[in-house]
Amino acid sequence: MSRFIVIEGLEGAGKSTVQHHVVAWLQARGCTVITTREPGGTPLAEKMRALVKEVHDEPLTMEAELLLMYAARVQLVKNRIQPALAAGTWVVGDRHDLSSQAYQGGGRGIEARLIRQIKEAVLGDFAPDLTLYLDIDPALGLSRARARGELDRIEREQLGFFERTRERYLELVLADPRCELIDASRSPDEVKAAVLACLERRLCTLG
Amino acid sequence: MSRFIVIEGLEGAGKSTVQHHVVAWLQARGCTVITTREPGGTPLAEKMRALVKEVHDEPLTMEAELLLMYAARVQLVKNRIQPALAAGTWVVGDRHDLSSQAYQGGGRGIEARLIRQIKEAVLGDFAPDLTLYLDIDPALGLSRARARGELDRIEREQLGFFERTRERYLELVLADPRCELIDASRSPDEVKAAVLACLERRLCTLG
Repeated sequence: MSRFIVIEGLEGAGKSTVQHHVVAWLQARGCTVITTREPGGTPLAEKMRALVKEVHDEPLTMEAELLLMYAARVQLVKNRIQPALAAGTWVVGDRHDLSSQAYQGGGRGIEARLIRQIKEAVLGDFAPDLTLYLDIDPALGLSRARARGELDRIEREQLGFFERTRERYLELVLADPRCELIDASRSPDEVKAAVLACLERRLCTLG
Repeated sequence: MSRFIVIEGLEGAGKSTVQHHVVAWLQARGCTVITTREPGGTPLAEKMRALVKEVHDEPLTMEAELLLMYAARVQLVKNRIQPALAAGTWVVGDRHDLSSQAYQGGGRGIEARLIRQIKEAVLGDFAPDLTLYLDIDPALGLSRARARGELDRIEREQLGFFERTRERYLELVLADPRCELIDASRSPDEVKAAVLACLERRLCTLG
């Protein structure tokens, strides 16, 4: 039976690398796998991503940012993720709903209840089967992200924004048994070993 | 004191013409007026409008359509309508929240409770002071709209969609004392006279 696995974490936490490890691990076990990234992952959702990521003259309100994130997410879930899962394909996502709760809730300060209200209105109880949260100190993550090049609209936020985002990530991850915390400040080999150990442990019990 | 007046109705009901009458009436009384249209009305909201109106290869889910409508509306309310009202400028809008309730609720069949949930999450109790709903039989309205040229993604819906939209419009308008029903199947002169009479009657009591 196929599953939806999500990699979460701040900029520079190493999500893409971990996504590759998870895909390789699943493929080695004979699973068919697709990957997604959020916001985006379908032609229309990528257009919504551009609205969220680009720097505009007009300020993007935090409420519109939140609604665009969910508009893109609904397109991805209904047009790609759910059809793939129904066809027995595993889905490994770079970000999903936890990002909105952490960034728009923790970072921007939108009330958690309002975010849940919107989520439930459009996606009901749809949720990942397993989330790997890569925890990193924002200063370290941002220095890694900056070394990669040009920063987008959200990556240009102040350090305090990312500190609040991490704090909310930690609260949510520690409260949800379907989430696993991985210390991403360690060396790439150590992170990889932790991820693989986690997959061995968790995906047996997923059934 | 400035007010937010909205013109609502199906395709071909004559909203733009009535918007002109309202603006002229206000200006003749010395009011400063701006006009808006929804979805759209700011540079970013117009980009969201394009996503909603254009015909795409990928189906736009009804949930994403709803969220894009509200994302555009939040941009317009926070970046244009509220600043204008605060500066003493009247705002005359072509469509606002009632459109989402009628089209996405009545037409598409999204639960009214879910639409209200999203509206309240991002806009609280912000609402027009007066809404003029131009009532028209969908078959007549659509034939007028078709005579104007190329139809957009929403205008291409079947007649049943617009019949359900009109039915919801009527329910909502009759239940809300801040809404006024105008029979838009009459001649342009009769509609204009009804609109002006309504403004005389309603804008005195708005105080």
